[in-house]
Amino acid sequence: MPNNFADRMLEAIARKKTPAVIAVDPVYSRLPAQIAEHRDLNDETDVEAALDASLEFCRRVIRIVAPLVPAVKLNSAYFERYYSEGIEGYYELIQEAAEHELLVIGDVKRGDIGPSSEMYARAHLAEPDFTNLDNVLAPDAVTINGYFGIDGAKPFIDIARTHEQGKGVFVLVRTSNESAASIQDVFLADGRRFYEAMGAQVAQWAAESGTVGRRGYSSIGAIVSIRDAGAAARLRAALPQSLFLVPGYGAQGLTAQDVAPLFKSDGSGAMIVAGRSVIYAYEEARYLEMYASEWDKCIEQACKDFINDIGQVVRID
Amino acid sequence: MPNNFADRMLEAIARKKTPAVIAVDPVYSRLPAQIAEHRDLNDETDVEAALDASLEFCRRVIRIVAPLVPAVKLNSAYFERYYSEGIEGYYELIQEAAEHELLVIGDVKRGDIGPSSEMYARAHLAEPDFTNLDNVLAPDAVTINGYFGIDGAKPFIDIARTHEQGKGVFVLVRTSNESAASIQDVFLADGRRFYEAMGAQVAQWAAESGTVGRRGYSSIGAIVSIRDAGAAARLRAALPQSLFLVPGYGAQGLTAQDVAPLFKSDGSGAMIVAGRSVIYAYEEARYLEMYASEWDKCIEQACKDFINDIGQVVRID
Repeated sequence: MPNNFADRMLEAIARKKTPAVIAVDPVYSRLPAQIAEHRDLNDETDVEAALDASLEFCRRVIRIVAPLVPAVKLNSAYFERYYSEGIEGYYELIQEAAEHELLVIGDVKRGDIGPSSEMYARAHLAEPDFTNLDNVLAPDAVTINGYFGIDGAKPFIDIARTHEQGKGVFVLVRTSNESAASIQDVFLADGRRFYEAMGAQVAQWAAESGTVGRRGYSSIGAIVSIRDAGAAARLRAALPQSLFLVPGYGAQGLTAQDVAPLFKSDGSGAMIVAGRSVIYAYEEARYLEMYASEWDKCIEQACKDFINDIGQVVRID
Repeated sequence: MPNNFADRMLEAIARKKTPAVIAVDPVYSRLPAQIAEHRDLNDETDVEAALDASLEFCRRVIRIVAPLVPAVKLNSAYFERYYSEGIEGYYELIQEAAEHELLVIGDVKRGDIGPSSEMYARAHLAEPDFTNLDNVLAPDAVTINGYFGIDGAKPFIDIARTHEQGKGVFVLVRTSNESAASIQDVFLADGRRFYEAMGAQVAQWAAESGTVGRRGYSSIGAIVSIRDAGAAARLRAALPQSLFLVPGYGAQGLTAQDVAPLFKSDGSGAMIVAGRSVIYAYEEARYLEMYASEWDKCIEQACKDFINDIGQVVRID
């Protein structure tokens, strides 16, 4: 029997006793001076050096958070920016995270018509079959854009179901950025908002995916970030078989209170993502006061604070 | 004064006297036997060989269609499937097309929140600044997913406006696949369909982009594929400053009659994309009967037939 991504994720959450996920998105100009060594963080003309320093930073962040959280999220945009070398770095980091027993979510937000989506699914969710690359792992789950309907999602869902390791998919439903509302919140003729229609589609894909695991969750999840408590509770009820991946915490302004309604009463159902507020914590006075220039300790403490924050509204036993 | 993508595209269309665009999406199992040489097209285990043959095929297709059409479209999915080596191949083909004076549309369909979208825009639309790569050009335009609203589109629009070469952006409005309707055609409370709201957003971005060229078109276009003539005409009227990139022709079922309403009365405003029906023409009996196993002549003839087909409904003088 194949493994199941939802079960694996829920087990990892139980083991670490937190649904906190860290987004590891490297921005060269924000790296700790110690990682950059003698380099000028305002000068990216030596792109190879910038990439090397960025990857070293990410490796260090992964090792710092590995004992604390069940999963990391890597956004491919920050690696594609460095072309083919960046792609290789992205896969190296997936491998690094896996070696530290973290689940990895590849935040690629791909979506296309069926035949092209199949290529994306093979590229980003299936195991690489480029035989001359050693130790290349694909992420445990990826994010996708559902704008094409089932045609575009199906190749990803098929891999999620059939992959021996058990893979996952998170479909964009409601995003965390300010202008999301201009598109995603428009009212439909039936009184729902557009993101609710997208959510209903994902609920159907989850139910029909053949990926429902032991805890009743499928491997087809949703990306949900919303501040309105009533709307959050409605989405939670409308997608009973989907894990929510919740961006927008910290730097983007969501609080523990905001995300509380995205959990079921048993404390399951959502993973909360923090990125910049944790991995660049050494830029903040309150952490620097505690740890001076020990940037790694700042990140560790910010990660613990984030976990405690979420622990105020959800308890994983 | 910077160049302008819309002007460049319209000039290229005028020079070739056709708005036909060829999508060059390699599928290894469909390559001509002569390109595959001694390889087994049903066996992709030697992935490097499969990629090499696929790239050689794409180079040959680009040279065949270069005298006939103004632009080619490369879908990054077909190259990402081959990891970092595929990405390098994708950029090599952009360079090959540029050397043959073709404009290149990078069909990457990216979209994310602002800071991440900025990374994607730098990766895919701005010139690569990875200094150890020689002769790497970014495409003249890319496709993007507008689900995030202006936050996600702005980094691409900014590069389109400021890049000295004049770059372009095509935003997904209505796609050509069967299940597009389930999401994109839902009715809004104001009586419009959802894709019309997306189109209205793109029209606003185009108007405010600061990229309107000499012919009144901005460099912010839209991807539009729709069979309903009335709906097509409404979109044409609603986005007066946007060039339409129109997939779905041929293999996906759109005809010249279907796409006619996407042009303005002066014959401008749309580029029609054919892919599989042209580049795999040698699979079809009618071309094989003419040219036997000369696969390149089959492609050339299919490209000319495609151009003539569109010429029935739109005349470029």
